[in-house]
Amino acid sequence: MADFNESVVLDAIRRHADGLSRVELARATGLSPQTVSNITRRLMDQGVAREAGKLNTGSGKPRTLLQIVPTSRYALGVHLDPAVITTVLVDLLGTVVAQQSRRTPSGGDTDRIAAGMAASVSALVAESGAGADRVLGLGIAAPGPIDAAAGWVVDPPELPGWGRYPLRDRLSEATGFPALLDKDVTAAVVAERWAGAASDSRNLVFFYLGTGSGMGLVVEDTVLRGASGNAGEVGGLGAGFSVRTLVDEAIALGVLGTEYTVLDPADAQGGLERLAELAGAGDRRAAGLIDRLAVRIGRGVCATATLLDADRVVFGGPVWQLLGSRLLATIEPMVASSPFVRPAHRTTVASTTLGENVAAIGAASLVLDSALSAQPRTLLLG
Amino acid sequence: MADFNESVVLDAIRRHADGLSRVELARATGLSPQTVSNITRRLMDQGVAREAGKLNTGSGKPRTLLQIVPTSRYALGVHLDPAVITTVLVDLLGTVVAQQSRRTPSGGDTDRIAAGMAASVSALVAESGAGADRVLGLGIAAPGPIDAAAGWVVDPPELPGWGRYPLRDRLSEATGFPALLDKDVTAAVVAERWAGAASDSRNLVFFYLGTGSGMGLVVEDTVLRGASGNAGEVGGLGAGFSVRTLVDEAIALGVLGTEYTVLDPADAQGGLERLAELAGAGDRRAAGLIDRLAVRIGRGVCATATLLDADRVVFGGPVWQLLGSRLLATIEPMVASSPFVRPAHRTTVASTTLGENVAAIGAASLVLDSALSAQPRTLLLG
Repeated sequence: MADFNESVVLDAIRRHADGLSRVELARATGLSPQTVSNITRRLMDQGVAREAGKLNTGSGKPRTLLQIVPTSRYALGVHLDPAVITTVLVDLLGTVVAQQSRRTPSGGDTDRIAAGMAASVSALVAESGAGADRVLGLGIAAPGPIDAAAGWVVDPPELPGWGRYPLRDRLSEATGFPALLDKDVTAAVVAERWAGAASDSRNLVFFYLGTGSGMGLVVEDTVLRGASGNAGEVGGLGAGFSVRTLVDEAIALGVLGTEYTVLDPADAQGGLERLAELAGAGDRRAAGLIDRLAVRIGRGVCATATLLDADRVVFGGPVWQLLGSRLLATIEPMVASSPFVRPAHRTTVASTTLGENVAAIGAASLVLDSALSAQPRTLLLG
Repeated sequence: MADFNESVVLDAIRRHADGLSRVELARATGLSPQTVSNITRRLMDQGVAREAGKLNTGSGKPRTLLQIVPTSRYALGVHLDPAVITTVLVDLLGTVVAQQSRRTPSGGDTDRIAAGMAASVSALVAESGAGADRVLGLGIAAPGPIDAAAGWVVDPPELPGWGRYPLRDRLSEATGFPALLDKDVTAAVVAERWAGAASDSRNLVFFYLGTGSGMGLVVEDTVLRGASGNAGEVGGLGAGFSVRTLVDEAIALGVLGTEYTVLDPADAQGGLERLAELAGAGDRRAAGLIDRLAVRIGRGVCATATLLDADRVVFGGPVWQLLGSRLLATIEPMVASSPFVRPAHRTTVASTTLGENVAAIGAASLVLDSALSAQPRTLLLG
């Protein structure tokens, strides 16, 4: 139980950037002052927390404030996207301290690609000067389907030739870090809670729009992964998306020229930028394509928000970065006026503040979440 | 933590009808033999467990088996359905030992109806001879929306005149039992796990078809309730249902005569029975009505099962009791061939074995679940 209580204290400290006194910590966590005192001493010994000034409460002696030391520990994240492989190193607060991106090699030479990912990870740690001993582990975000228990990617549609590949263990062996694997959409919602604007949200849907689409789901403060780690599939909701299909449709309608044909997911950026530009300049067919996509996403998001009784929807991902402002203009009023439930509460809608690397930050956040969050289930009878 | 570990032991015992030895309990729970021994002694002192024969393992001395004493404790459940109010008393295994149903009074004289519910509850306990001191509490299942925190029903569409009504506290005050309130669909999925065939299922969707429709959701062994206790709304999925609308449609098509007009939800039974009879006899329009409903439900269920990565779907509720066999014939192959996820696992489909009182049994199961399940979150820092 010591570990669990330690996590509870650390969690309370990290959520208060200005610091918390031991008295406030005891109140916030429900732990006894003596327990809080023991734990904070341990956290300070480990360098994870520090004393940071005094709080004068007016009565009694001033209280010493405790703060987290963000750079005392780090986490690595790597996002295997069909278009781009992004590697990040984040500190304890989820802030990115180093980042690297490169185009995803096409073809299915999985061992070579995995070796390249491992090399990027190792190089990022070396160049950052963070010190490998301060790195808690490596999180991996991959397109679904995955086999969560085995740590495999399982024939992702946009990664032809990958088959069933033991990505988690290969990267762990090659880098020497303990590794975790989750779906990219799940990683994105974990990022939003750890490093994004939704750290206080207990019922949250993250709609991810990249080479494909999917949702990260949090209900009652718990990230939903499902029976095999593949929760978040949106095809059944009519909100499936493929960047290739969108660009192909734009070409078929004559909105984009054939030079924008997507042979590889990494080629899609130019066509999407052009599409957004045309829609912004008043091209009706370009706008229609984006708006129809918005309606499909909006319906899926409304259905999910009412099904799960969520009160917050966040959008992000590389394609959202390009088309999001126009999409949101359609989706936001759809959510606000959804007729399916008389509103027990408002449902807020926003774009992520974490940018296009949200899934890579999420991958790193998986490590922070696993190592530092108070997770009763895994620690109970320990 | 004693309470938590006690729940863990009790949970293991109740899941093994034939009994478990202390050695097996230690293995199953991860607790030390000494802890198991202390806890089982306490459970026996309380009359909740008993020794039941010996297990001869071939080597060493025979091991004494421990069994739950089902009638050592009881739970009450009441289901406020727009058509019928059902009250049940269940034992520790969720088996119904006493049951009472009556037509839901129409009109919104809520205080009188609540008083009637309380009287039924008290009468059921008195007549059963169970002894009020052995009753753990009263669970209430109500149509959504609810305000879970406040324990209110909030203007249920099929209960006109109810407005915002503090049903939980009124019934608790009137009966003297601690009370819990949840949505009927949530209660149904809790019943299925406690007393139904899905006690081993960790990722489960329960589609409830009664006066309305909705889903009870379990992901990774956790019942999902959402921000306000209203998870499970299926309108956004196109799987909304109203018994009144179905019968009206059948009348409009000339399948049913106007004598089946539903003035009150309690009147719907006859029309539904007639509709099922006609469809079974080969009436195409009757069959078409039911089959179209099946497709809408099937789509919603497929979308949800893939979204939540569930591996089990169970159907039930009073209207399902009448139409389920025909509905299932359409829905089962839809789920089996759902194209949205390449199957990481099979998804099984079945009707509940708990019959039309599944939500009332679920209401009582809420109490068992709250009092007896190992629930880390609520017990952690105790």
